[in-house]
Amino acid sequence: MRMTTLCYLERDGSYLMLHRVKKQHDDSHNKWIGVGGKFEADESPEDCMLREVREETGLRVTRWRYHGLVTFVSDVAQSDYMHLFSATEWEGELHACDEGELQWVSKKSLGQLTLWEGDRIFLALMQQDRPFFSLKLTYRGDTLVQAVLDGKEIALNQYLV
Amino acid sequence: MRMTTLCYLERDGSYLMLHRVKKQHDDSHNKWIGVGGKFEADESPEDCMLREVREETGLRVTRWRYHGLVTFVSDVAQSDYMHLFSATEWEGELHACDEGELQWVSKKSLGQLTLWEGDRIFLALMQQDRPFFSLKLTYRGDTLVQAVLDGKEIALNQYLV
Repeated sequence: MRMTTLCYLERDGSYLMLHRVKKQHDDSHNKWIGVGGKFEADESPEDCMLREVREETGLRVTRWRYHGLVTFVSDVAQSDYMHLFSATEWEGELHACDEGELQWVSKKSLGQLTLWEGDRIFLALMQQDRPFFSLKLTYRGDTLVQAVLDGKEIALNQYLV
Repeated sequence: MRMTTLCYLERDGSYLMLHRVKKQHDDSHNKWIGVGGKFEADESPEDCMLREVREETGLRVTRWRYHGLVTFVSDVAQSDYMHLFSATEWEGELHACDEGELQWVSKKSLGQLTLWEGDRIFLALMQQDRPFFSLKLTYRGDTLVQAVLDGKEIALNQYLV
């Protein structure tokens, strides 16, 4: 079991997006995602998120929200339990990331990016002011085949950015 | 990394508590806790909770709340990421549990039971109507030495049942 965090830094209606173009052997190669990574020993979700954002951007997050837990199931990769955050306050100066190109993208334009299909669902859920959610996404290869929100299957086009 | 669920079934102001007296080699021997257990492959938190409650009590939970994630860190055991639920509706008949004795206990009396110290904190947090929380509990042996709630250290006696 793999545990990861993903964080979207938010400023003036935009998210800080990472265009993953620098690593060749990257399951998310060429996709746009937030910043984050794998838990290290003894880290809580927020410990991991704070460290990963600092490593990948140079920024020290001081205000965040924990939106949900996304359970990824796939026929080609191990299960991933991804803890989803957004951040609205931080300190420090943005630096380049060795995993891709960082770019501020308007939330209204997210739908035009190359995203994982399921990311369109949780990005839409994040933009609603809903309580913490548990979203289970099942993939066959790169194709999303099922989405279950808080224990109930949802139509794949029900929430989308 | 170990991932588990813990669920407190709630009825008429009482929780269904499990007095863990049946297994000798049990880290929680003689303690009172809720019902739950370890994630199996590809389970979401609610998948695991629903299966564990069914196995340990015979009940099929139909309405639940996901309260928080508790990160346990210890000098004598591996880290445990425990997903905390309560349930208020279910179907079926309660059966005996092979891990201990099941008993309905008034929420007002929880403080008199033999509990893990940190459980007194999350049980108190569950009884407040607060949003999803992340609680990191650090133990030395059986002694709780630090509690961090949503990234901020709290006094160990600040929230207690």
